[in-house]
Amino acid sequence: MAICAQSPLKPINLSPHLNHPTIHKSPFTCNFSLSSKPTPTLSTEPTPTLTSVTTFAPATVANLGPGFDFLGCAVDGLGDFVSLSVDPSVHPGQLSISSISGNASSKLSKDPLLNCAGISALAAMKLLNIRSVGLSLSLQKGLPLGSGLGSSAASAAAAAVAVNSLFGSPLTHLELVHAGLESESKVSGYHADNIAPAIMGGFILIRSYEPLDLVKLEFPEVNDLYFVLVSPEFEAPTKKMRAALPKEIGMPHHVWNSSQAAALVAAVLKGDVAGLGKAMSSDKVVEPTRAPLIPGMMAVKKAAIEGGAFGCTISGAGPTAVAITDNEEKGREIGERMVEAFWKEGGLKAAAVVQKLDRVGARVVSSVPR
Amino acid sequence: MAICAQSPLKPINLSPHLNHPTIHKSPFTCNFSLSSKPTPTLSTEPTPTLTSVTTFAPATVANLGPGFDFLGCAVDGLGDFVSLSVDPSVHPGQLSISSISGNASSKLSKDPLLNCAGISALAAMKLLNIRSVGLSLSLQKGLPLGSGLGSSAASAAAAAVAVNSLFGSPLTHLELVHAGLESESKVSGYHADNIAPAIMGGFILIRSYEPLDLVKLEFPEVNDLYFVLVSPEFEAPTKKMRAALPKEIGMPHHVWNSSQAAALVAAVLKGDVAGLGKAMSSDKVVEPTRAPLIPGMMAVKKAAIEGGAFGCTISGAGPTAVAITDNEEKGREIGERMVEAFWKEGGLKAAAVVQKLDRVGARVVSSVPR
Repeated sequence: MAICAQSPLKPINLSPHLNHPTIHKSPFTCNFSLSSKPTPTLSTEPTPTLTSVTTFAPATVANLGPGFDFLGCAVDGLGDFVSLSVDPSVHPGQLSISSISGNASSKLSKDPLLNCAGISALAAMKLLNIRSVGLSLSLQKGLPLGSGLGSSAASAAAAAVAVNSLFGSPLTHLELVHAGLESESKVSGYHADNIAPAIMGGFILIRSYEPLDLVKLEFPEVNDLYFVLVSPEFEAPTKKMRAALPKEIGMPHHVWNSSQAAALVAAVLKGDVAGLGKAMSSDKVVEPTRAPLIPGMMAVKKAAIEGGAFGCTISGAGPTAVAITDNEEKGREIGERMVEAFWKEGGLKAAAVVQKLDRVGARVVSSVPR
Repeated sequence: MAICAQSPLKPINLSPHLNHPTIHKSPFTCNFSLSSKPTPTLSTEPTPTLTSVTTFAPATVANLGPGFDFLGCAVDGLGDFVSLSVDPSVHPGQLSISSISGNASSKLSKDPLLNCAGISALAAMKLLNIRSVGLSLSLQKGLPLGSGLGSSAASAAAAAVAVNSLFGSPLTHLELVHAGLESESKVSGYHADNIAPAIMGGFILIRSYEPLDLVKLEFPEVNDLYFVLVSPEFEAPTKKMRAALPKEIGMPHHVWNSSQAAALVAAVLKGDVAGLGKAMSSDKVVEPTRAPLIPGMMAVKKAAIEGGAFGCTISGAGPTAVAITDNEEKGREIGERMVEAFWKEGGLKAAAVVQKLDRVGARVVSSVPR
């Protein structure tokens, strides 16, 4: 079993393509409709093809500035693990959470109905119509809670993919996203901008929810893209972060942000890191209202840009700051400046990591065949 | 001289690549800053390399639904011509408009300071620092006025490129756009979503004005894309069309339209005509307020979609409706349905044409060397 304890923002040494042959890959654009409550998509119940499986799902950066509530991407080397096994001691069709370890494990419920991984696993089991087998799940939190790095989505993604893999991976990416959305809607709202990239990897544009329509934006492999993630020791007041959002946006800001979102997507598809950073930095709608709630954030952004980052903004609802660059060493220097700015201007201790784009998404890292 | 009279929406048989070797091509993204009043960019005044030149600039479709005020594209086969010659009878450094013919020519002023082509030509002359040569301009309007097809931008683009070509084409695309913007700002507001594609061809995203930053979005050549343009005999009340715009946009609509603009750009770059149509059709901010001001517009959109179009919206501020498809013959059928709907539901006579994307932009069609 590949479970290992991870401290917050401590990158994982993980071979991303290992044991990852079975997850269905969606095409560039995929339309798929599901009712808000998953209903079984298989007419016959599948039998397990594995005895146990361990999966990993990456951290995600949602919003990326002007992509508020519809754009997110996955970040390599940070994430959560789920181990899942067929367990004769668990009632058929049911799920038991046997253990939770790692970050903030004491804060998480072992009741599957109150746990991100549990809710998502149960939703995937429902989609698969699992009635004859009981499952036991163990969650290893690599991500800190409430950091703006898609912690709940990573647990949900790892759990859904674990269930799917255990039964031969009949579910599509979109079905897995829908299972994960069951969890996300209970924890942080009905938003797919973390769960979709956590499952599918790369950059994902959420085009609509009814029906669920996701567009994977391929960032060219030849271009280098590094995320500098700087997480301060600060609890972003989630309710405040939502309440701070403007209810109405003036037409000039609407046009501006729309054009920047469009430019951001163009930059991703062209592999234009400078353009991506510029667009990411350009949000005039959400960032200006949220940044003041995170001590030092504007100074951190300034430090990142002055340090050579192509762009910087809040990751998700924060408090993590995300900057981008095309060079790992430069990324570390930028990270140091950002950590310093959090301390000097916000009075907050912070930790920085430099990570690549995760192009794979949630995946199997080890398994035991039947 | 290749000037020929064109009736409204009568496509031009034009060889687009003929005599078009000298216009500077901009890279994918180009940053360029100019003050609002063009100032000379050349230290020495260039001498004419041609005695006379005739240029063509295409019609343009601005907005494309959620790309309101920052996205536009050029449409092949419809546009304006400008003929320009060195004229010793014109005072050095000045411009004379010798003739205006074609659509609505009687409505247009021959005073260069009150004419789109004149203003743009003078701005280009200023950029080139022309003081020793007088020029004579003749404008051939192929586009109807106030149709939502970028009529003023086509005249301005053809004029700016004519001036540039006459002097050996030292100006860049961005400088030419800036010259055209001088005209647009006086006629229809400081917007580059018509003038930029009229000059540069293809799809253009206007990322910012200060500095002027344009992103050319290459639609893959292998994919077929046809525009069905249906222009009713109706004067869109420009002031009303602007006044109808909402001043404030609720957050859900802001997020929706931003995501559709982003999806539109992704579809363009991927050559995904269906995705492009879907995004183009999805505007919840501008179209719902403007469409009711054009009799029959919503029925026309419905007819287009029912006829198999991938999407349909208002071209620019209207009244032209634009639908897209991937097949010319299908485009003609869709056009017939749209014309019928304008008549049945709006009581308006309308004419339809089916045109391809213009990838070239304003260009020289004939010239006489010195």
